[in-house]
Amino acid sequence: MGGGEITKRGSGLVLLAVLPLPENAAKDTIAEIKEEFPDLEYHYLFQKLEIKKNSPPDGHVDVPADLLKRVNVLVTLSWLPAKESDVPKIKFIQFISAGTNHVAKHPIYTDTKIPLCSANGVHGPQIAEWVVMMDLIHNHNYIDLYKKQEKKEWKHKELSSRDNVGRTVGILGYGSIGRQDESWNVFSLTNFGTVARVAKALGMNVLAYTASPRKTPESKRDDGFIVPGTGDAEGEFPSAWYSGLDKESLHAFLKLKIDLLVLAVPLTKQTTHFLSSPEFALLHATNPSGTYIANIARGAVIDQPALIAALKANQISGAALDVTDPEPLPADDPLWDAPNVLITPHVSGVTQTTGERCFQVVRENLRRVRDGRGLVNQVDRERGY
Amino acid sequence: MGGGEITKRGSGLVLLAVLPLPENAAKDTIAEIKEEFPDLEYHYLFQKLEIKKNSPPDGHVDVPADLLKRVNVLVTLSWLPAKESDVPKIKFIQFISAGTNHVAKHPIYTDTKIPLCSANGVHGPQIAEWVVMMDLIHNHNYIDLYKKQEKKEWKHKELSSRDNVGRTVGILGYGSIGRQDESWNVFSLTNFGTVARVAKALGMNVLAYTASPRKTPESKRDDGFIVPGTGDAEGEFPSAWYSGLDKESLHAFLKLKIDLLVLAVPLTKQTTHFLSSPEFALLHATNPSGTYIANIARGAVIDQPALIAALKANQISGAALDVTDPEPLPADDPLWDAPNVLITPHVSGVTQTTGERCFQVVRENLRRVRDGRGLVNQVDRERGY
Repeated sequence: MGGGEITKRGSGLVLLAVLPLPENAAKDTIAEIKEEFPDLEYHYLFQKLEIKKNSPPDGHVDVPADLLKRVNVLVTLSWLPAKESDVPKIKFIQFISAGTNHVAKHPIYTDTKIPLCSANGVHGPQIAEWVVMMDLIHNHNYIDLYKKQEKKEWKHKELSSRDNVGRTVGILGYGSIGRQDESWNVFSLTNFGTVARVAKALGMNVLAYTASPRKTPESKRDDGFIVPGTGDAEGEFPSAWYSGLDKESLHAFLKLKIDLLVLAVPLTKQTTHFLSSPEFALLHATNPSGTYIANIARGAVIDQPALIAALKANQISGAALDVTDPEPLPADDPLWDAPNVLITPHVSGVTQTTGERCFQVVRENLRRVRDGRGLVNQVDRERGY
Repeated sequence: MGGGEITKRGSGLVLLAVLPLPENAAKDTIAEIKEEFPDLEYHYLFQKLEIKKNSPPDGHVDVPADLLKRVNVLVTLSWLPAKESDVPKIKFIQFISAGTNHVAKHPIYTDTKIPLCSANGVHGPQIAEWVVMMDLIHNHNYIDLYKKQEKKEWKHKELSSRDNVGRTVGILGYGSIGRQDESWNVFSLTNFGTVARVAKALGMNVLAYTASPRKTPESKRDDGFIVPGTGDAEGEFPSAWYSGLDKESLHAFLKLKIDLLVLAVPLTKQTTHFLSSPEFALLHATNPSGTYIANIARGAVIDQPALIAALKANQISGAALDVTDPEPLPADDPLWDAPNVLITPHVSGVTQTTGERCFQVVRENLRRVRDGRGLVNQVDRERGY
C-alpha cells in the first residue's frame, strides 16, 4: 500500500502554495485542479504578510526542507526559497502578482534560470468593469439619480443622459504583455482587451494606442493569460492602432475625437504627466462636447493640477480616477472638490475572485507542463516582466 | 424652372414629420437622410403636447391640407389625419413610439390599411446600459465608494466587489417583437439583445425566457429595428431558451441559479405580480449567495410588499428598479427604505439620442420603400403591435 502511494506520488507533480490568502479564496479552482490532476500532490501554507512602507510584500513562513526538495511547482506572492539547491526538482514558480518587480533582487531571480510566471491578466475583467461602470455612471448622470433617491424624490433631469452607441473609446496602453511598471503594487499589469470587447458590444468604436507599433496580426495578439471568455486574444476589437512614446504621436491620437479616454500606460519617465494642459486643450479642441477620462494606470500619468484646471474650465466632460497622486489622496487635496470627478481608492483590480483567477493561471501552466507546451506569462528576466 | 421643380418633387417622396421634439433632436440623421435621398421633399412641424392624465399624448397641429394631400411618409408620435382620404398618397406612417396602443382607437388605425410602423428597438442600447450599469454598481459596491468620496475618505471595504465572469444572467422577456404592453407609455417595447450582447462580452452566461417557445433558429431571430452594431438579430447570445406564462414554467427558469435577473416582460394579467414571495424564496433556495433583480418592465410585475420583505430577509442580494408601483413612487413608500435597493424614476429608456434613433428607423423604411422590400416594425393591427 505504502509503496503504491509512493509510486502514485512519483508519477505526478508536487505543488506547494505559499500564499497570503486564505486557502478557500481559491477553493473552486483548486478543487477543479485536483479533479483534473488526480495524482497531483498538493500543499498549502498560509503566509502572514508583514507590510513595510516602500518594501515589497513579504512575511516569514516555515517551509519543511524535505517538502521543498520534492516541490515541482511553487505558487507564491513573494516567498521564495533561499537558493536554487533548495528546490532541485522545481519546474516553474508561479507568482500570483501581475508583475515580479518585487522579487527582482532575490537570488532566485538574479542567479537562476528557474522559469518564473506572473499572474498578468487575472485582473482584466474587474478593471474593465470598473471602466465601463464609471463611463455609464457619467453618461447616465447616475450620481444625480442617486442623490434624488437619497431624498426619496422621483425626479430626473430631462434628457440628460445618452448611450454609447457610435462613440469612440481610445485605450492609451492597449495590451497586456510588454508593459513594465516600476511600482511595487501587485495589481499593476493587466490586459485591456476586455474593455475593448465590452465597448464593442456597446456599439462603440475602439482605438488602441501602444508604446511600439503593432503592424502585423502577430504583434497585435495577446499571448498572456486571459480569463476565459474575456479579453482580446487576437487583437480583433480595435478599428485602428496608434503608437509612440513621444508627445507628437500622443497628440495625433488625442486629435481623433475620443469620447472615452482610458489611461492604461505604465508609469515611466516618458509617461509621467503624459496628460497635461496642452493635452487637455487638444482634447477640448477636437471634441468640444467633452472627452471623459478614466485613469486606471497611475496617478502621476496625469498632471493633477492641470487636470483640476481642465475640469474647472470644462475642457473635458469629467474624469474617473482609481489612482491619484499621491495615494492615499489627502482629505484636503483640491482634487476632491473638482467638478465632474469620481474618485475610488485604487480598487479597480480588487475582486473577491483574485484567488480563483490566480489558480486558473496555475492550472493553465500545469496543463502546459503536462502537454509539453511553453508556459504562459513566463517572465523575461532581462525585460523584467 | 418651376416645371422642373415640380418634376423633381414628383420623382421623390414627400415626408412630413409632426413631432413633439425640436427638429434638431434628430438633426444628424435628418441630414444623412437628405444626403441619401436628395429628391426627398421634407417638412417638419412641431407639435406641442397637451398632457392629460390617463390619456395618450396628443396636441393640436395645423397641417396644411394641400401638403397632406401630397404626403407619402408621415412621421408622428400621436398626430394623425382625420381620415384616409386626407392622405391619398400615403405609403406608410412611422410612429416614433415603441408601441401604437395610444392610437389604437383612431379611425386611421381601425378603418384603414395604411401601413403603420413603430419605433420598437430604438431604446434598446440605453436600457441595456442601464441594466449593466446597475449590475456593476451593485457588484462593485459603488454606492459605498461614492459615499467615501463624498466624505473625502480614501477607503474601501476589503474584497467586497466581484466581477461578472462566469455568472448567469436570466432575461425574463427576451426579444423585441411579439410583446404587447397595455400602458400608454411610449417607451414600452424594446429589444433586449443588447443586454445579452454586453453580458456575453463580460463573460456571463445568458439565459432567455419568452412567452411562447422559440425552438427554431427562425423563431429566435429579431426582425424588428435594431440600432446598428447592437442587439441580437440572430438570437445567438443566449445559451438556452425557456418559455411559458404559467408559474410552473417560470419556476423552472428561476431554479437555474440566476445571478442577475432582468425583468423585461410586458404587464399583462399573467405577469402582474409575476415575482412574489414564492419566487423570491425559490431564488434564495437555488442561489443562496443572492440573485440581483433589475426591473425595466413595469412596477406591478413585482409584488412590491413581497419584494421589500425579500430584501429585508436577504433572500435576494438587491434590486435595481427603474419602475415602481405606483409611479411616481410616493416619498413615504416603504420601498425607499428597503435595504440594497436602487431606484431610478423611469429613465432607463430616456436618452438624448431618441430623436436620432427614431429617424434611423425612418431612414431604414425609406430604403425599404426605395428598394421594394417590406417595412421594418410594421404593426399588425390584429395583434396590436
